[in-house]
Amino acid sequence: MLDNRILITDGKKFRRVYDLTSLKKVQLPTGEIDGEKLKKLQKGSAIMVNNRKYYIFGCDLYDYIMYDLKRHTQIVYPKEAAYIMVKLDISPGKRVGEAGTGSGALTAFLSRAVGKDGRVYTYEKREEFVHIAQKNLSRCKEFDNVTFYNKSIEEGIEEKDLDAFFLDVREPWEVLPQVREALKPSGNLGILVPTTNQVSQVIEGLENNNFFILEATEIIMREFKINAQRLRPKDIMVGHTGYLIFGKKVVDNHN
Amino acid sequence: MLDNRILITDGKKFRRVYDLTSLKKVQLPTGEIDGEKLKKLQKGSAIMVNNRKYYIFGCDLYDYIMYDLKRHTQIVYPKEAAYIMVKLDISPGKRVGEAGTGSGALTAFLSRAVGKDGRVYTYEKREEFVHIAQKNLSRCKEFDNVTFYNKSIEEGIEEKDLDAFFLDVREPWEVLPQVREALKPSGNLGILVPTTNQVSQVIEGLENNNFFILEATEIIMREFKINAQRLRPKDIMVGHTGYLIFGKKVVDNHN
Amino acid sequence: MLDNRILITDGKKFRRVYDLTSLKKVQLPTGEIDGEKLKKLQKGSAIMVNNRKYYIFGCDLYDYIMYDLKRHTQIVYPKEAAYIMVKLDISPGKRVGEAGTGSGALTAFLSRAVGKDGRVYTYEKREEFVHIAQKNLSRCKEFDNVTFYNKSIEEGIEEKDLDAFFLDVREPWEVLPQVREALKPSGNLGILVPTTNQVSQVIEGLENNNFFILEATEIIMREFKINAQRLRPKDIMVGHTGYLIFGKKVVDNHN
Amino acid sequence: MLDNRILITDGKKFRRVYDLTSLKKVQLPTGEIDGEKLKKLQKGSAIMVNNRKYYIFGCDLYDYIMYDLKRHTQIVYPKEAAYIMVKLDISPGKRVGEAGTGSGALTAFLSRAVGKDGRVYTYEKREEFVHIAQKNLSRCKEFDNVTFYNKSIEEGIEEKDLDAFFLDVREPWEVLPQVREALKPSGNLGILVPTTNQVSQVIEGLENNNFFILEATEIIMREFKINAQRLRPKDIMVGHTGYLIFGKKVVDNHN
Repeated sequence: MLDNRILITDGKKFRRVYDLTSLKKVQLPTGEIDGEKLKKLQKGSAIMVNNRKYYIFGCDLYDYIMYDLKRHTQIVYPKEAAYIMVKLDISPGKRVGEAGTGSGALTAFLSRAVGKDGRVYTYEKREEFVHIAQKNLSRCKEFDNVTFYNKSIEEGIEEKDLDAFFLDVREPWEVLPQVREALKPSGNLGILVPTTNQVSQVIEGLENNNFFILEATEIIMREFKINAQRLRPKDIMVGHTGYLIFGKKVVDNHN
Repeated sequence: MLDNRILITDGKKFRRVYDLTSLKKVQLPTGEIDGEKLKKLQKGSAIMVNNRKYYIFGCDLYDYIMYDLKRHTQIVYPKEAAYIMVKLDISPGKRVGEAGTGSGALTAFLSRAVGKDGRVYTYEKREEFVHIAQKNLSRCKEFDNVTFYNKSIEEGIEEKDLDAFFLDVREPWEVLPQVREALKPSGNLGILVPTTNQVSQVIEGLENNNFFILEATEIIMREFKINAQRLRPKDIMVGHTGYLIFGKKVVDNHN
Repeated sequence: MLDNRILITDGKKFRRVYDLTSLKKVQLPTGEIDGEKLKKLQKGSAIMVNNRKYYIFGCDLYDYIMYDLKRHTQIVYPKEAAYIMVKLDISPGKRVGEAGTGSGALTAFLSRAVGKDGRVYTYEKREEFVHIAQKNLSRCKEFDNVTFYNKSIEEGIEEKDLDAFFLDVREPWEVLPQVREALKPSGNLGILVPTTNQVSQVIEGLENNNFFILEATEIIMREFKINAQRLRPKDIMVGHTGYLIFGKKVVDNHN
Repeated sequence: MLDNRILITDGKKFRRVYDLTSLKKVQLPTGEIDGEKLKKLQKGSAIMVNNRKYYIFGCDLYDYIMYDLKRHTQIVYPKEAAYIMVKLDISPGKRVGEAGTGSGALTAFLSRAVGKDGRVYTYEKREEFVHIAQKNLSRCKEFDNVTFYNKSIEEGIEEKDLDAFFLDVREPWEVLPQVREALKPSGNLGILVPTTNQVSQVIEGLENNNFFILEATEIIMREFKINAQRLRPKDIMVGHTGYLIFGKKVVDNHN
């Protein structure tokens, strides 16, 4: 939960995150509500505003990423972010690298999972995205374990012996030597690409750079309509976000 | 990474986890290898044993759950466990409840994610499963933040103000009042059930117990064959594991 | 191919079917084109209209159903219609029943597949839908092998010894005795329902009415973007249309 | 229904097709049954053989393809065959081409759908497959509208002005000029390939050979367990059969 923020939703389309510290008036679909009144409400409360019910909840990281983050790029969605963290074995205290930062969505998930004893090093070559991501993550104190670089990892990675690395760049196969250098032996690598052509190139790149390939997969989320008596999946669903490939650094054998 | 364990794989069907502390001899599909020799090998090494190549990797939590855990029940698989942790907003320092413990697979994921400043309280009514889960989690020191109860939560939950709760029981709708009591306002609830009939009953139960329903969903993983030149999904895939329903505790309004 | 009709498309969003017999002027997204000119064009031609390319194709039954049929109901989509015809073993000369008619989409598929030596008997209790379906199918001579009834099959089915029957009604389990009466022994039954609750009730109904259940399934279509260099599934897809259940009439055993 | 054949099933794993004309004794999982007795039973009957119930049904084309066809190749499965017939607009009287014949599964579906006024021309370069397919289709008189060629279509297609063509060969992009020659203007083309690399090459080939691309798609079938009270998809499903690409012949423009 991000302490200074709340999520307001009507249980339908309306889902929005608000910063409590700067809240004056909140404009809802059916009317206005006073910021001071909101601050006094317990999280978990429901209120009526002109005959529509609104729920005031704490703001989870999920809500922050989905409804509040400034996005100037395609973000890594929670369904992929969740599985990435499991496959990269992210846990408190780990040191993890990432390129590119993008809007910082995955960065936030990684930051939280490694906690105050861990550290995230994130590289982004486009300066404006570094600023956006920094701003996105500056809002919550818990993300202060992130080091931002405005730099392509083609020029090299500053860190050594990282526990894991994640690549969300256009041509990940081009930077695998640099990632190898930065990873500890047996360290985990995750890669996200949107097209099948890229999956083929990633597989070739991993094979050529002495990575063990754990799996290439996609994660499909199929939501249901919330209707106990007429249960069925939603009519329209997200058809594709991306493919995930995971590998491990194999030690070069010179003996 | 679970420090005292290694994963050995041939990159094909063979994937097994070994405990380094008690390792004498390791029987591989193509021959035997000495435990002392294995301990000296760097993680990430590849070795040849009678013309087959084996990789020695560190043991991630994923590997431990999938290839080493003693299972006497259907476990919560990593693809669901990952998303559960994101939707329940599990992070370092949180206090989380769970029923039933089963073999302890999700318990291990939760334990790791809340870290040494958090705590997991897990309930299981079948005594033999409590023992299995305790044994499964006793192997790694990082899981010592778990409290095990041999008890059905129908009789009540000891804790109050929990950040989140997860239910993996046959009739979760029967214990929603107890879960409400244990959760803090706006606290997150996750439920896993295998059948559509149960999804309908869970939705009704949540509506009757003043939970806000966030989503009902399923997570489908579609793996690819690792073949850059002939890329295609695997011929056979897991068709179904379970449905996930997530909600938040709404505060009762007595005014 | 429906001889009196053409499909015009720009290969993007624009796909429309036109009746050649009554064509004066055709309004396309980028301009107008004369009907007489269109009639002289060979099917398969491409023409430029104000810098956009349009293709003039013959009108397949698929195009007619998807882009021309007047719909006042949810139709049976081609992906389901196709599989229904295979599982019901529809072929030239067969006699097939259907309830309800709806907009006549499946009726058209069945009509074409049984051909001039076969016959389709279709029942619909709502009068306005009968008129719509009749009008939809009156446009093409090949559909003159259809008998329309404005009647619920709860009141009975006129035919006996039908080769197959298809049910697309709200409570199919209520009319299974009537369908049994109309089907020949070993005859095929197909049922389409949108919700899981209905699937459960259909299964119970089939078991109680001495039908052998072949399968309960859903058919999911996942389209790709047409881009050879950046191949990937479409971002958004149809998440759900309906569930299909197929069975066979078992003969009652009185000896 | 293939008149000289029956399907016997116990509703579980056992599903087998028998030729009634040559039936002496039938060996079932729980015992033997006399062929003469079987012939006298009405289709749709259920019989007990040593405490297990067996159902005697007519043999649909689906059953013939799935449980009786001699296969020496990967066949086109009914879920794809069904959709292919709809997208190629196959109907009574049409003239359709196919390469390669393989075991003749799709050939049988096409043959039945074009009926006695239509014709299927099927090409296969491997002689042994031609023999297998001919034998497979010789069993039923309704398939006598098929012309078999033991020949690769790289050497040309004998027919002109075909209504539709289907390609199930390893490198379909190599024979698109020949298929263009054989198809009538606006004629339909369908292609099945198992890998994404091939989909990319097919798309390029169609673009270079002046075909309009209708869609590239895959059809996923998700079966449920037949259990009304505990409804859920099957644990294991077919993960992938192939990708389908459909196009139409565009007329070359020489003015």
